[in-house]
Amino acid sequence: MRRGRSRRRGGKANSGEAKRPFRQLHNPLPPIEVLDEEAIQLIHTTSVTLLEETGLEMWDAEARSILRQAGAEVDEAAERVRFPRELVETVVSQAPAQFTLHARNPDKNLQIGGPGNIVFGAVGGPPFVTDRIRGRREATIDDLHTLNKLIHVSDVLTLGGGHMVEPSDLPRETAHLDAAYADIVLTDKAGRGNGLGRRVTKDSVTMWAIGHGNSSMTTEQALAAIQEKVVLMTVINANSPLRFDGEMLQGLITLARHRQASMITPFILAGAMSPVSMPSAVMQQNAEVLAGITLAQLVSPGCPVVYGGFVSPLDLQSGATSFGTPEGAWAQYATAQMARFYNVPLRSVGCLTTAHAADAQAAYESLYSLMPAVLAHIPIITQAAGWLDGGLTASMEKFVLDVQLLELVAGMCQLRPVTSDTFILDDIQAIGPGGHHLGTAHTIENFRTAFYRSPLSTRMSYEAWAEAGQPTTAERATERWQELVKGYKRPFIDPDLDDALQAYMARQKQE
Amino acid sequence: MRRGRSRRRGGKANSGEAKRPFRQLHNPLPPIEVLDEEAIQLIHTTSVTLLEETGLEMWDAEARSILRQAGAEVDEAAERVRFPRELVETVVSQAPAQFTLHARNPDKNLQIGGPGNIVFGAVGGPPFVTDRIRGRREATIDDLHTLNKLIHVSDVLTLGGGHMVEPSDLPRETAHLDAAYADIVLTDKAGRGNGLGRRVTKDSVTMWAIGHGNSSMTTEQALAAIQEKVVLMTVINANSPLRFDGEMLQGLITLARHRQASMITPFILAGAMSPVSMPSAVMQQNAEVLAGITLAQLVSPGCPVVYGGFVSPLDLQSGATSFGTPEGAWAQYATAQMARFYNVPLRSVGCLTTAHAADAQAAYESLYSLMPAVLAHIPIITQAAGWLDGGLTASMEKFVLDVQLLELVAGMCQLRPVTSDTFILDDIQAIGPGGHHLGTAHTIENFRTAFYRSPLSTRMSYEAWAEAGQPTTAERATERWQELVKGYKRPFIDPDLDDALQAYMARQKQE
Repeated sequence: MRRGRSRRRGGKANSGEAKRPFRQLHNPLPPIEVLDEEAIQLIHTTSVTLLEETGLEMWDAEARSILRQAGAEVDEAAERVRFPRELVETVVSQAPAQFTLHARNPDKNLQIGGPGNIVFGAVGGPPFVTDRIRGRREATIDDLHTLNKLIHVSDVLTLGGGHMVEPSDLPRETAHLDAAYADIVLTDKAGRGNGLGRRVTKDSVTMWAIGHGNSSMTTEQALAAIQEKVVLMTVINANSPLRFDGEMLQGLITLARHRQASMITPFILAGAMSPVSMPSAVMQQNAEVLAGITLAQLVSPGCPVVYGGFVSPLDLQSGATSFGTPEGAWAQYATAQMARFYNVPLRSVGCLTTAHAADAQAAYESLYSLMPAVLAHIPIITQAAGWLDGGLTASMEKFVLDVQLLELVAGMCQLRPVTSDTFILDDIQAIGPGGHHLGTAHTIENFRTAFYRSPLSTRMSYEAWAEAGQPTTAERATERWQELVKGYKRPFIDPDLDDALQAYMARQKQE
Repeated sequence: MRRGRSRRRGGKANSGEAKRPFRQLHNPLPPIEVLDEEAIQLIHTTSVTLLEETGLEMWDAEARSILRQAGAEVDEAAERVRFPRELVETVVSQAPAQFTLHARNPDKNLQIGGPGNIVFGAVGGPPFVTDRIRGRREATIDDLHTLNKLIHVSDVLTLGGGHMVEPSDLPRETAHLDAAYADIVLTDKAGRGNGLGRRVTKDSVTMWAIGHGNSSMTTEQALAAIQEKVVLMTVINANSPLRFDGEMLQGLITLARHRQASMITPFILAGAMSPVSMPSAVMQQNAEVLAGITLAQLVSPGCPVVYGGFVSPLDLQSGATSFGTPEGAWAQYATAQMARFYNVPLRSVGCLTTAHAADAQAAYESLYSLMPAVLAHIPIITQAAGWLDGGLTASMEKFVLDVQLLELVAGMCQLRPVTSDTFILDDIQAIGPGGHHLGTAHTIENFRTAFYRSPLSTRMSYEAWAEAGQPTTAERATERWQELVKGYKRPFIDPDLDDALQAYMARQKQE
């Protein structure tokens, strides 16, 4: 890689607040489970029957060819692939149970999978952005930068962004390059990419490989180096029911060849893309995921791959989507059990809502999506910060609200050790009936760190709050995200790598 | 009882919506537990040591006399009682593990305790009321009526009210009579009373006894009849640390004599009333509860009694209370385990917040108090609808918001059966890749009932929402509670019993 002139050196990250050391969330409680062994087996056998008898449409000739060679029954005219049971079971068992997702900053590497390990990632996909200052609008690259800055300063978001919003102000053909560049340089957390088709996926993989390389490497050497080192995970959606389109299949094949992780995720609104029954939806989702995993493992046996879950009930009386529902919670628990059955890490979704503002509905639907995901031990929880409006809009206030929810849930996973020392019995006895502990040495030593303090919640008296103009949580969130962005400092990147990334972008844009 | 002239006959309950049959919540999942056996034993032995060595102040001569006769060491001058370990362990084991709380309408009887059984009750105690129409103000008897109506029409609130707000427009000495009357006649759900001192508690017990009697009974006969029939549960607070005041002890003794249930609840803000450590707070709470249970069982061996839990961290940097925190969640789990260790039903608290409006903070703090309570299998969850402003204010909008949270959580407790029939495999196969299930016979038959529908959440498009003036959840909640109150119809009560209640009130007011 060429040594460039540009010397854009970043300082250390500083959100303007006391930083905690980087730490991945671990849920020490046993997972909540809603399926018994028999139900798990039934979902497995039924979905394998579905793969065998009905199969999937796979809209890519290369994918079909790979599957045919492995023994699948392929109807080329119909682009239909039927998967023999034994093929699926054998091949799926080759997928690794866990892997390390490497970050540019090795202190921020993530363990994907393994009992109780959880990572949180922000919103991905919306065409719109909103905040309480400028209102709702088409997203721009500047908004993508702001979201990356918010990720960088939010400790609890351990996963970086992956093309979080569509920058409408950039040419459609090359916007993915600018998005990947921002995702790589604006934070040093582990990354996600864009898996839409061969060219975009290849660009995404290459830029992350460069970002993880060193200045003496050619692009090819950087790509070779990540064969043994997972540096990005990318969503590959099924087009439910029972179909993968060509762009997604090419993305999946490209990722597998580079030994990077596809997160194979059907998106099922039960009642439309599946029967109006959650067990049905979870079973069908399972069949679709198994088809994707099978293909990835045939392309590159043992490559990292992630089971993706995203099932929500459709409200059939209004025709609208609905999130944060009891049925959605059940699907999280059940899906987590299926992924554990196959011994593959699961990716699911966190803070979902159909609300249009960071109000009470946004809070309860999001927390009621998030908590089941954490209680289910889902290892990768994305869409966990900023998702508003059924996923159409990324909101800065909602981002801050969701980070608050993530911090609460992370706090729940910290167990308080109970030993005889923890009771401070001497103090209780010395103070006796009717006294208080406000001035004890123990209180003075521990009050700063003993309990979680919310940066968003008000603890004011009613009178003080009324005096302050009755600010709602959404209004406080506006102050909060601006403050966080102001405190952001760009993390260090080797200027040669930065130059190499920019050079790659420039070359691809010319082509 | 005298037959009166008044014939105020109520119709059947009708909230203006499809009513579901009355059903108590049952959580089929195993409880979340944060303490191992050793920790439970350590909390037990340490709190018994505290009872033995330090003891409690018990500000009532009768209570001290009962305890002295049972072998406790009493220092009359200091009003201090030290409890021998063996006394506590023997006597606490006499408390029943579960009991039936009878409702005026026997279809609405509740099982208190027993694996997974949960009841939800509304707010209790605030001096203020607020709604978005009239703003914040001192509560009146009319507000208490409105809250009772909201309880009656909210299926998920299975427990009735107990003097929910202080009616500032009535004479202080007799307001409890009007409150009890409202609680008894405005809903036919099982009741809670007021346990503040001998006279008020006796009035509360007597009025509930009359309400459960029949027209041929004298008041004394009605009271005798409830010796074998629990008809109310009442909060008895400790005055933490390590003190019960006289009013509360007289309330407890009166309830025990009538074999009604005290919910013995310390209210500990950790850092002030206990050390700044949740294990300490939970241990101290345990000692205080054991003292109360011991007294109740000495007054009336085998009488129903409830372990009360209410521990929250004090934010020592601001001096403010805080609810819906990770520490609070831990305390819920730990307290539930201690109550199960003693085999006594637990009462804890549901939807708490320091927010002043039904906004995002109110939603996330409340749901983050409620979910741990349900996941912990806490049998009685009160303060679960309408609690705002750190408990100083009852809010009509918050009531509706909380009922929404309760419905979500109740929905989580309904497991979806997984059998081969549930997969609707024929439809999935017939529709095949790329189709949809919107018009299938299965969808048409099931779409109305398959999934939970929220009465509060918006599923509108952004455009429709903007067109409608961007209503927040709080604004929709205002419409919702008014609609619910409008749909309320008073449940049936035998007019003779109604007369008897009114006659009792009139007599007590004259005295």
